[in-house]
Amino acid sequence: MKRRNFVKGAATAGVAAAAASALPAPAISQGLKQWKLAMSWPLNSPGLGTSGQRIAKRISQLSGGKITVKVYGGGELVPAFGVFDAVGAGDADMYHSAEYYWQGKHKAFNYFTAVPYGLTGTEHAAWMNYGGGQELWDELSAQFGLKGFLASSTGTQMGGWYRKPIDKLDDFKGLKFRMPGIGGEVLRALGVTVVNLPVAEIYPALASGAIDAAEWVGPWHDLAFGFHKITKHYYYPGFHEPGTTSSCVMNKKLWDSLTKDEQLLVKTVMEAESYIQFAEFNARNLGSLNVLLNKHGVKLHQYPQDMLINIGKVAGTVMNEIGNTDAFTKRVHESFMTYRKQAIAWAKIGEQGYMNARLLPFKYG
Amino acid sequence: MKRRNFVKGAATAGVAAAAASALPAPAISQGLKQWKLAMSWPLNSPGLGTSGQRIAKRISQLSGGKITVKVYGGGELVPAFGVFDAVGAGDADMYHSAEYYWQGKHKAFNYFTAVPYGLTGTEHAAWMNYGGGQELWDELSAQFGLKGFLASSTGTQMGGWYRKPIDKLDDFKGLKFRMPGIGGEVLRALGVTVVNLPVAEIYPALASGAIDAAEWVGPWHDLAFGFHKITKHYYYPGFHEPGTTSSCVMNKKLWDSLTKDEQLLVKTVMEAESYIQFAEFNARNLGSLNVLLNKHGVKLHQYPQDMLINIGKVAGTVMNEIGNTDAFTKRVHESFMTYRKQAIAWAKIGEQGYMNARLLPFKYG
Repeated sequence: MKRRNFVKGAATAGVAAAAASALPAPAISQGLKQWKLAMSWPLNSPGLGTSGQRIAKRISQLSGGKITVKVYGGGELVPAFGVFDAVGAGDADMYHSAEYYWQGKHKAFNYFTAVPYGLTGTEHAAWMNYGGGQELWDELSAQFGLKGFLASSTGTQMGGWYRKPIDKLDDFKGLKFRMPGIGGEVLRALGVTVVNLPVAEIYPALASGAIDAAEWVGPWHDLAFGFHKITKHYYYPGFHEPGTTSSCVMNKKLWDSLTKDEQLLVKTVMEAESYIQFAEFNARNLGSLNVLLNKHGVKLHQYPQDMLINIGKVAGTVMNEIGNTDAFTKRVHESFMTYRKQAIAWAKIGEQGYMNARLLPFKYG
Repeated sequence: MKRRNFVKGAATAGVAAAAASALPAPAISQGLKQWKLAMSWPLNSPGLGTSGQRIAKRISQLSGGKITVKVYGGGELVPAFGVFDAVGAGDADMYHSAEYYWQGKHKAFNYFTAVPYGLTGTEHAAWMNYGGGQELWDELSAQFGLKGFLASSTGTQMGGWYRKPIDKLDDFKGLKFRMPGIGGEVLRALGVTVVNLPVAEIYPALASGAIDAAEWVGPWHDLAFGFHKITKHYYYPGFHEPGTTSSCVMNKKLWDSLTKDEQLLVKTVMEAESYIQFAEFNARNLGSLNVLLNKHGVKLHQYPQDMLINIGKVAGTVMNEIGNTDAFTKRVHESFMTYRKQAIAWAKIGEQGYMNARLLPFKYG
């Protein structure tokens, strides 16, 4: 998914809550720190809100009471998409969101979340931590007064729900598809009428036939949304977001003011979240896929090869255009593309090579 | 790899060090805790020793000085394979090792590290954390006075180095292959003469032709070992260990005596390690594969399909035998097999489905 509209909806819903809740008093001294974490998602939203809330709880608990992190859902403290500016300005201390939402600030932010036909979740973690990605992100974030950490991955998303099956590139022509972001740009170049809808309108629009297709996240979130009640045609793979990674970002002056031990605490909590929330996405997605297929009669469709090839060509062109936006984006693009090439070579031999062997026809157990 | 011989070698090397170093004095009170972490690997060994040492350093640093964790390489405090008994008895407080080394204690331990044609690293993390694996491991470990945490994954290992290419099942007959553990049992059933050698003897044995093939870990570790100087024939995929996961395990009484905050500290550090060390394996493996192929002229061979199919059949039979060892192992086996089936279904649609689409012929960037 691109969550823009999801969180826009959340932001609207949060207005009343924001008006009703008094802003917290400034941190009282005696060395106690009170941090405000503003999220782009509603409180308690599975895998997103719950993830930001766990980060806050762990930092508070592990600091031995020296730091207290209070969490605000989208729209409570600032609008869901106001978190970037608010943390940069020091009006909040941290945000939990996804970097591709800030592509209006700088195109290079896209690379730090997910791009069409890019890296998987594990590959993204490797590039960011040991392939130069974090250093580039730090350089970019510093310009906005921010210091960022990856917070988790949704894993590879699903291709979406179609009211009627499609089986050739021509079927894209005039199809009304709810897909925001760069994935939407790619489909638009292939003749799709890309539409963007507030989250509350996606389900009714697909149900009424106002749109022909919609993508959201993966089986875990799609099952909760109930798309299977409208149509059984569920497509894969989710080429548009192969390993969407959320982020938790601090005000840079605050980060720089921390002791080494406090910095290690924050870093460790973020790394732990990157592991545990990714594990939950993996487990919940497979459990939910099982329910969709075996309880709700959902029919899986793999996009035909010629469609995937043409989407890939256009995705490459779109990414190259983005990579040429400016000198800094070009550096990020080149680092990303070099890593991607090597990651594909290694995946074929390693994990993907193994997973393909595992599908050969033999009885196991 | 199975590291038995690697660490046996390390244990031997460590005897002098153990004799020379005085055992630490008992923890001095005033509420300060001094923990001893005994590893099955040498200090500073990449991705294994360094991982245990980072865990120790972080627990020490994040506890605000209340806990100090001192690390011992294999053979320094106790023999490399004595760590399980030592921690169970309270002679050490924690160990860093891999659970399949304890299959002599209980066959079920195999499932918590890696088994032939089993789960990948990310799937393993999901099963353990959200699929019931951790609860089963806790039940088993408690019988030995232990409480375990996963610590990282090597990712999918490589199939190994062959002096001469093989291309059919018959080529396995009489082939002398250094592969320990369950992977070795599988190959033995297919006519391979499986041999086990101390780590220091693997390289000379392959160089002299005393053995025809050997597997170790993945590109990162294999490049360091220098196998490419002997032969260029490097096989994949590593069906025998698709996602080998190390473990860091505490004495259970010690764990139970910790405050909730201390328990969260330990758990968070372990989760962070599971993320960051896996990312390093992924990044170093792809960088090293690149060097092996482009600098050292190594030739990659994919095992032919009929070999992979026959290996798969035998692996299933061997795993079923292990699963029938006793009532508890049967419960673990059934949980694992159920999860494996669903994980395969989800991988096809999600990450693997995406990675296969990514290999279609299109120019990207």
